[in-house]
Amino acid sequence: METARETFRSFGFAPIDTPTLEHLDVLTGKGSEETDRQLYSFTDNGGRPVGMRFDLTVPLARFAAQHIGTLGTPFKRYHIAPVWRGENPQAGRYREFYQCDFDTIGTESVLADIEAVTVIDSLLKAIGIDAFTISINNRVILSGLLESLGLADKTTAILRSLDKLGKIGLEKTAAEMVSAANITADQANQVLRLAELKSETESAGASGIFDRLPEIVNHNATAVAGIDRLREIYEGAIASGVSPDRLNIDVSIARGLDYYTGVIFETTLDELPSIGSICSGGRYDNLAGLYTKQHLPGIGASLGLDRLLAALETLDKLSTTNKPCPVMILYFDADHRDDYLKLATNLRRGGIGTEVYPEPKKLGQQLKYADASGFKYAIVAGGNEWQRGVVQVKNLAEKSSDEVAYRHDSADALITRLLA
Amino acid sequence: METARETFRSFGFAPIDTPTLEHLDVLTGKGSEETDRQLYSFTDNGGRPVGMRFDLTVPLARFAAQHIGTLGTPFKRYHIAPVWRGENPQAGRYREFYQCDFDTIGTESVLADIEAVTVIDSLLKAIGIDAFTISINNRVILSGLLESLGLADKTTAILRSLDKLGKIGLEKTAAEMVSAANITADQANQVLRLAELKSETESAGASGIFDRLPEIVNHNATAVAGIDRLREIYEGAIASGVSPDRLNIDVSIARGLDYYTGVIFETTLDELPSIGSICSGGRYDNLAGLYTKQHLPGIGASLGLDRLLAALETLDKLSTTNKPCPVMILYFDADHRDDYLKLATNLRRGGIGTEVYPEPKKLGQQLKYADASGFKYAIVAGGNEWQRGVVQVKNLAEKSSDEVAYRHDSADALITRLLA
Repeated sequence: METARETFRSFGFAPIDTPTLEHLDVLTGKGSEETDRQLYSFTDNGGRPVGMRFDLTVPLARFAAQHIGTLGTPFKRYHIAPVWRGENPQAGRYREFYQCDFDTIGTESVLADIEAVTVIDSLLKAIGIDAFTISINNRVILSGLLESLGLADKTTAILRSLDKLGKIGLEKTAAEMVSAANITADQANQVLRLAELKSETESAGASGIFDRLPEIVNHNATAVAGIDRLREIYEGAIASGVSPDRLNIDVSIARGLDYYTGVIFETTLDELPSIGSICSGGRYDNLAGLYTKQHLPGIGASLGLDRLLAALETLDKLSTTNKPCPVMILYFDADHRDDYLKLATNLRRGGIGTEVYPEPKKLGQQLKYADASGFKYAIVAGGNEWQRGVVQVKNLAEKSSDEVAYRHDSADALITRLLA
Repeated sequence: METARETFRSFGFAPIDTPTLEHLDVLTGKGSEETDRQLYSFTDNGGRPVGMRFDLTVPLARFAAQHIGTLGTPFKRYHIAPVWRGENPQAGRYREFYQCDFDTIGTESVLADIEAVTVIDSLLKAIGIDAFTISINNRVILSGLLESLGLADKTTAILRSLDKLGKIGLEKTAAEMVSAANITADQANQVLRLAELKSETESAGASGIFDRLPEIVNHNATAVAGIDRLREIYEGAIASGVSPDRLNIDVSIARGLDYYTGVIFETTLDELPSIGSICSGGRYDNLAGLYTKQHLPGIGASLGLDRLLAALETLDKLSTTNKPCPVMILYFDADHRDDYLKLATNLRRGGIGTEVYPEPKKLGQQLKYADASGFKYAIVAGGNEWQRGVVQVKNLAEKSSDEVAYRHDSADALITRLLA
């Protein structure tokens, strides 16, 4: 979270927070049938129907619609907070989970789309992940294709079927499209040519895809504009320093949520693609329109922290954290309790985090706790040491110990020793 | 929040998080009649009665009871997160509000009590507040007094009346005690001698209170032990560096929550006492006993972030935040979009947070945004500058501007200039 905050800030995103509970009608019908079904909702003590947010984007759109007059545009914010979906928990999928979102509200500029790719790339690298792939698509391409096939009114149903492609494969997706969207097998196959494009053009890479696409979308003007924009995003991201190896143009990805209107992103870990996308998002130019008459285009993405943690755990890349402070003072001699407390205060004032063991238990037990907790140093001082104006500093990893001068009014030598 | 995290860590507290929703029976009957009534509860999609946490202490006790075997003791954690109470919102009091808690689980040692006072003191000073008072009491003193009056079974009702003392005054509290706890006026007055003690002994300060107390509690052994412990906490806090001016022994404070069993704290801002306690807590040695057979004593306190913010706003001490990054690049020349993006990436790699204005709007409009957002520098470069290998750096506060050498492959001069 700390790393995400730093990355977001370095791009000019500021933190905001919105309430957990929204009026129910703010949340329903915004995500998908699935998010509606999974919503935690109830009637509050004042008789108002309310729901717990299922993502951070819908509340952001509501918030922006309400406050954009004072906020001004472009409004760039990040938001790291839990969201709730009543689904069946599985590895990396929980009913309460953290999202880590950044969004830019108030501009349709392709620069914001490019920046979103750059933020995802910077964020994952800052977290320490090297092998990942950002898949990019533009929903406008599919819309144009459907327009050319006379299927514009069936977009939602077709998108939902298409979203299952990665899980159930081409054939089943085609069958589902035919039955769910009530289209012909031939129409379904035309749509699915978008998915086949990838393997066809693999050797030619992204530029091969961009060259072949206009024909596949029947040269529909909407789709062609979408292809041009996707190419601009791809090239802009590379100009911004994103490695082309990490970018994947995939015109078949759909994203489950209904509110996306333009570019969409998914990010997978190359070593564990099966866990699904760990950072997803896209452009949603009409979402705030549900709450305001002002046109408030938006673009952003969300890092799924819990899924990422589950993945890093599986890959054995999750470092266990140590105690948040380096020094523990042993409570050795009950008569010197106030001395231990003063010593701790002096070390903290010197910038060294310090814990005092709370009870004068046996030294062995205290040292066992110090070892297990991952402190770097343990400080031991009994009556003899206090009298002589010294303390014992034990380096717990190196199992070494030395005596350092210390009095309450001259703590510098000890502080220097501990900072070394 | 950042400051709180740093302070907590410097005492050895590690962060944890618990779920927002708990099984309803974990939450009910733990706080007070009021928290029960204010609870947000409902039946989830799986038919389970659940509730949203009303504080962070009850979930901590449940969590510790469940996991203490693997956690070990002392278990020191902090937790910064929202809680929910369906009450009537007012200044600094919201239905959703942030608590900022630290707790030590697994020790009855007075050292942990002393440390809690020290943490509160350090935290407020680190936030930049100078004039505050930490009021300290030990509930055992009242328990002993009630024992000596034969009123031990009426403790909860008497505590709840006593908790209103600050709001409704002595006389009304006495009347309420008589009716709510069904005790005699004489008994109520004996209890309320605890509150009168303060003004009686004002000139003698804390030691005057400690000297007078044994007589007021009828030399009851339980109460006297409680007085001794309170004195130890008071003296230990001073030894730890807390100024005696900031400590207030007040044996009449009760705290609304039922679960406290020992020392209790309240913290008020000297310049705005009317907003109430901004940091409260105490010892709760039996709370986890509701969820486990193991004895798990606990002590901690909670900073009420929203109330503190409301107070700082009232006192005009809340600094407005600026943009989280210092540099904005103007999108001056549409032909050079990729150059602006590259420049931003280079500055970020040099450790300088940089935002690119997303659209090639009029310079005046972009500069207005830069000013309003509080950026420190704006960078302007058109075709001419790019050709000459320079950019214009505008210092927005000083309204000055100078030309600095920059090419994508040699960004050092510009980075040095911006870090100066």
